[in-house]
Amino acid sequence: MAGEQPEVVLLSFWCSPFAMKARIALAEKGVPHEIREENLPHEKSNLLLRMNPVHKKVPVLIHKGKPVCESSLIVQYIDEVWTHESPLLPSDPHERARARFWVDLLDKTVLSVVWSVWFVKGEPKEGAKEELMETFKLLESELGKKDYFGGARLGYLDVSFLPYYLWIHQLEKANETAGRETELKGEMEAKFPNLEGWMKRCMLRESVSAVLPDPDRVSHYIRQIRKMVIDAQA
Amino acid sequence: MAGEQPEVVLLSFWCSPFAMKARIALAEKGVPHEIREENLPHEKSNLLLRMNPVHKKVPVLIHKGKPVCESSLIVQYIDEVWTHESPLLPSDPHERARARFWVDLLDKTVLSVVWSVWFVKGEPKEGAKEELMETFKLLESELGKKDYFGGARLGYLDVSFLPYYLWIHQLEKANETAGRETELKGEMEAKFPNLEGWMKRCMLRESVSAVLPDPDRVSHYIRQIRKMVIDAQA
Repeated sequence: MAGEQPEVVLLSFWCSPFAMKARIALAEKGVPHEIREENLPHEKSNLLLRMNPVHKKVPVLIHKGKPVCESSLIVQYIDEVWTHESPLLPSDPHERARARFWVDLLDKTVLSVVWSVWFVKGEPKEGAKEELMETFKLLESELGKKDYFGGARLGYLDVSFLPYYLWIHQLEKANETAGRETELKGEMEAKFPNLEGWMKRCMLRESVSAVLPDPDRVSHYIRQIRKMVIDAQA
Repeated sequence: MAGEQPEVVLLSFWCSPFAMKARIALAEKGVPHEIREENLPHEKSNLLLRMNPVHKKVPVLIHKGKPVCESSLIVQYIDEVWTHESPLLPSDPHERARARFWVDLLDKTVLSVVWSVWFVKGEPKEGAKEELMETFKLLESELGKKDYFGGARLGYLDVSFLPYYLWIHQLEKANETAGRETELKGEMEAKFPNLEGWMKRCMLRESVSAVLPDPDRVSHYIRQIRKMVIDAQA
């Protein structure tokens, strides 16, 4: 109806892996929603600043006017509110704690590693790449030969990990198109056959393919941001 | 029965604020459990290394032989398994997301601030104290005039925040007994009347008072660890 606020709004940014987590979860559940794109890193909307005054970051899920912040908490919230289909968190408390453990480890590791590997002047911080590869190695083994982390069905850990894993591939692709070495991409393809198969399997899903940004546009954006951040370190 | 493993074991350390979160939750729920003390920082038991191979840290809750790691996930697990009384997380999904948001913010802030303020040679890292006080200010306002964060009853955010808040008081007390300035303690008492009242209210609860370590022993331990860590930075 004209003038009415949609019930579910996601404050998003087109290539944010954090926003992608929320978008996949909403798509898996079939929750009708409106995406409001922020114009990052240049400006943040008043709505974003009002809805997430502590972190001032996307994604923010606004449901019936109330905000939920932090991507992993948003995915859990979506799972708890729209329970009618596609349960994401395992029903067994121990399995649920285990899925949360891996998501927590990824949340703690990936962003800080990305900043200290891809967005620094000169050599990446010592040990950072190794820390990331170690985390991926643990998840390669956790996945094993299963289709998804929870078994036959896409779940909380898949939704939370996939955008990060794709992001690392995209960061390496941006390196490649800039004529720089892309050792991690080669290492990932060689060392993590389970994860590579899982990534391709996930990308065939409608919920994922519909939210995947154009890879060339992502590469261009990454190179732009990297230049901006590294110039600021000069 | 002789030789039988207890159903619930907590790998703990007597003055760990992280372990205290789990201990308060178990006590609030009245879950019979056995505490196994680690001898930190000198050695870690084989059981700890086996049950928490990724982080190798306490607390670890072992329930029917299976580990749950990371203090905030342990508290959520306890709440989800022992549902018979004292619900900790709010039943409303939005309130639950909000409680998780604050706990997540504390988990991200407190430990890193503690290391960069109390365990560094020379001046604390710039802005670290201010970051902590800013977080406490937000929580002072979130608590308001309520008895506990969720209202009349102790809940997830109380259980998660209290050990951190007490820890900062203890770190300042250790400074005081070492003849150093304790500006934060004074600042906390002046600026956060709601939090100070809440802390005292919580400390009167059986679940909390039973797990509070002796303050003088804590001060002594903090000074010892600080000397060890700061000497290693020389």
